[in-house]
Amino acid sequence: MERTAAILSVGEEILAGDVADTNAREVAEALRQRGLAPRLLCCAGDRVEDIAAALDLATRSAALVVVTGGLGPTRDDVTRAGLARAAGEDLVEDSTALDGIIAFFQRLGRPMAESNRLQALRPQSARALPNALGTAPGLAMELHSATVFVLPGVPAEMRVMLEQAVLPWVEERCGAPAPAARVKVHAHGLPESEAGERIADLMERGADPQVGVTVAAGIITVTVTSRSGAAPAGRAEVERVAAEVERRLGACAFARDGETLEEAVVRLLLERDLKIALAESCTGGLVARLVARVPGASGTLLEGTVAYANEAKTRRLGVDAALIERHGAVSTEVALALARGAAVQAGAQVAVSTTGIAGPGGGSAEKPVGLVYFGLWLAGREWARRVLFTGDRETIQLRAAHYALDLVRRGVLGALA
Amino acid sequence: MERTAAILSVGEEILAGDVADTNAREVAEALRQRGLAPRLLCCAGDRVEDIAAALDLATRSAALVVVTGGLGPTRDDVTRAGLARAAGEDLVEDSTALDGIIAFFQRLGRPMAESNRLQALRPQSARALPNALGTAPGLAMELHSATVFVLPGVPAEMRVMLEQAVLPWVEERCGAPAPAARVKVHAHGLPESEAGERIADLMERGADPQVGVTVAAGIITVTVTSRSGAAPAGRAEVERVAAEVERRLGACAFARDGETLEEAVVRLLLERDLKIALAESCTGGLVARLVARVPGASGTLLEGTVAYANEAKTRRLGVDAALIERHGAVSTEVALALARGAAVQAGAQVAVSTTGIAGPGGGSAEKPVGLVYFGLWLAGREWARRVLFTGDRETIQLRAAHYALDLVRRGVLGALA
Repeated sequence: MERTAAILSVGEEILAGDVADTNAREVAEALRQRGLAPRLLCCAGDRVEDIAAALDLATRSAALVVVTGGLGPTRDDVTRAGLARAAGEDLVEDSTALDGIIAFFQRLGRPMAESNRLQALRPQSARALPNALGTAPGLAMELHSATVFVLPGVPAEMRVMLEQAVLPWVEERCGAPAPAARVKVHAHGLPESEAGERIADLMERGADPQVGVTVAAGIITVTVTSRSGAAPAGRAEVERVAAEVERRLGACAFARDGETLEEAVVRLLLERDLKIALAESCTGGLVARLVARVPGASGTLLEGTVAYANEAKTRRLGVDAALIERHGAVSTEVALALARGAAVQAGAQVAVSTTGIAGPGGGSAEKPVGLVYFGLWLAGREWARRVLFTGDRETIQLRAAHYALDLVRRGVLGALA
Repeated sequence: MERTAAILSVGEEILAGDVADTNAREVAEALRQRGLAPRLLCCAGDRVEDIAAALDLATRSAALVVVTGGLGPTRDDVTRAGLARAAGEDLVEDSTALDGIIAFFQRLGRPMAESNRLQALRPQSARALPNALGTAPGLAMELHSATVFVLPGVPAEMRVMLEQAVLPWVEERCGAPAPAARVKVHAHGLPESEAGERIADLMERGADPQVGVTVAAGIITVTVTSRSGAAPAGRAEVERVAAEVERRLGACAFARDGETLEEAVVRLLLERDLKIALAESCTGGLVARLVARVPGASGTLLEGTVAYANEAKTRRLGVDAALIERHGAVSTEVALALARGAAVQAGAQVAVSTTGIAGPGGGSAEKPVGLVYFGLWLAGREWARRVLFTGDRETIQLRAAHYALDLVRRGVLGALA
């Protein structure tokens, strides 16, 4: 069998973004663990023609299509009709399914509403799947080149039916679940394009393992995924390629498999038993916040100062007012003085500072929005950096905070010139 | 024009659920505000044939298709190729787009990587859209019955191009944005269940407008949506119900329609011309970070101190060491002293402090994980609060930061007992 899957979520509340589509994520993860990574996720509202169109696409491009939602008893639950439309079939009442619904209400000791009868409808060639937890039977049918499973939208009901009907079908064809053969390498300090060039040969189309690059707020993630499922050979190959990616990214690579930059930095500082102090201007506490979100951060973070106003820089961190006057608050000199002041005042071995223009206002031709100076103080040695970031205020702040954290990491590792 | 839209997100990281698809939500909301509610959302990975298949479906079922992502310079950025495949066209180099990319690197003073040249490719009949913030030009073209816009995946770049290229196209066809017949009321300081009880009668199934409640990190959002579209009568009714919701939530309601708590607090402080200082222990800079992310925050935020270590509390904020010794750092007395110290040292009229146990370690029977004390100093008057939050470290920190911000808001408004 061709190992491709697609997932279709039905519901206006998901389409409108009012409700997070946790079902799709859960189905995707369960399929991925079994070597059947979904290639297409779709979300349609409660309209027969949209559901039918999405099913038409999905069943032509994947071997397995899992649909969730739209099986309720109200007028806006039209997934059954959408499936019938896509298959060109009529809806018929399934007597076994109807008996199941009637029995469900009997167990609850409640009368069945006439509208629940609609839930026993199925396209002619489909079969109904029993629902142990609710009134909505699921559906399974062949359509085009695919097997389609339709599951209820209620997460608990969806989960049971996924486990009882869909996953056995998958495992029969793809084998039992194995640890995913996937490694992520995280890096900071080079543009996405350069990262891509350094590993271009590993990213050839069709290569196994598959190598992909994404970037978010300056953090590059290279994902290495085996195409041959979770077989031991595939995992060994993923490990080999991931190690090669790390070698090529050099000092830029800082962690694996979801460890964040702040976690890597806190881990490093704790390992070396170093205490850190922070002096932030344009990042406004974000560096402190990132560090402090890491459990155990109190073992290394002595204090942080958000010195927005110039007087705060002088009064709190001992930056000479004349220095600010002469060079401006956004300058190499002030960045260094901020880091030095933070380290000395806190008695820390490490301190990092940020001073820049996060925007949207405050920029000039000489010092545009996005310009940030960094100072690093490391047991008496000092480094300064000047970087021009692009993006909106939030992006500039986040990228600058990442840069500051990475500066600490590189300094502690002795990787700074 | 038929008022239908579809959105396609491209990227393995979104398909895999590693990254939330905020772009699709943002595009959907912008279109919805202009009366063009998307009917189909799709997400495809970085494969030409999947992107082409999704584009084929989308362009046959909607008049407008907005695609985000896959325009980067690496080999796995194949949205350009997917669009060409769907259209049956070749990719050609766009010389104007190439000039734009070259100019972008010149402005940054960095060399252009050869791979960035790929970003100037476009299907023959497409036109390139300039990208002010990054290297990836967007694309616009006609395909089947639809107009397709392809935007970069980087949110800030996506946003600018959406506003400059897509929304003018939409407004030309659908008219200017009408105020959506939807109002959100945001509140803090009561449990979701209590909020639900106070407005239970407004939430009757089938009622028009429809009223729903969600909660995230202690912030309640009540959404009031007209079922009768954006007609004036529906809007008036939405406004009436939203006002009734606000009345019932009383001082807990702090803003509307997506304004965040930190935005509301900064707005209030700027309106009253009040300067604020922050003293954070267990929130570790998060309060400062939330305030500093608001444009214009430098007009009110004088300074923030992250005083993790007890010595920092004493040395930086003048908290009497004997007070800490006597009551513990996590106490009403220290919370008040922290706020007082922050205000006095910074010369601020307002100061708020946090001291507590964010976990996962550090809790005791008497002072469990989640216990946080707050101090508020307001031109000489003082308030303290003690709250026990539940959740993991991140949740406790975020809920405590929200609590601190709301304490400032209520204090400034004179709503504290």
